[in-house]
Amino acid sequence: MPIANTPETPYYAVILTSTRTAEHAAYETIADAMAHHAAKQPGFLGIESAHDSLGITVSYWESLEAIAAWKRNSAHLIAQERGRDLSFQSYKTRICRVERDYGFEREA
Amino acid sequence: MPIANTPETPYYAVILTSTRTAEHAAYETIADAMAHHAAKQPGFLGIESAHDSLGITVSYWESLEAIAAWKRNSAHLIAQERGRDLSFQSYKTRICRVERDYGFEREA
Repeated sequence: MPIANTPETPYYAVILTSTRTAEHAAYETIADAMAHHAAKQPGFLGIESAHDSLGITVSYWESLEAIAAWKRNSAHLIAQERGRDLSFQSYKTRICRVERDYGFEREA
Repeated sequence: MPIANTPETPYYAVILTSTRTAEHAAYETIADAMAHHAAKQPGFLGIESAHDSLGITVSYWESLEAIAAWKRNSAHLIAQERGRDLSFQSYKTRICRVERDYGFEREA
């Protein structure tokens, strides 16, 4: 998974941090399903995900409206995940406005 | 590492996403050093970190001023990390205002 290729600021980010009861492989399956689903939504800009003892998934969006629509459209995925008892022990979602960004890429 | 116990919004987040040339253990050492350093800075609220093929570290702050001061104070850490050739292949830093948050914690 590469670093998301986001446009100029401002744009929006959803940070989902979780601890989990499910094993590693199950988390990856859920994270992949969420990423594939998000990528089809209007206003989606990119997604980044990493997990070890914590899981952190950050998705990037054009607007708060796009985030709200994505949340409505992904409710069934979350319900499915809960139903399969691959549940998070705890999670926190944070909706953010990205004010500024900068980076670095080493030449190949 | 638990989910950061942040106060009511608004507050600020710094999302650092990286790919790396260094091996897993070296990344953990750097991430730990950054976390310990950040925790001593004024305005620090918490930090979350996870890594597999990507590394994602999110630190939370009271204000943009606190972030700017932390960045000034951690310049030597970044220089040291570069000097040790435990360098990131690429990274992106995003400075965000957290507008809204919500979460869930399963009862023990």
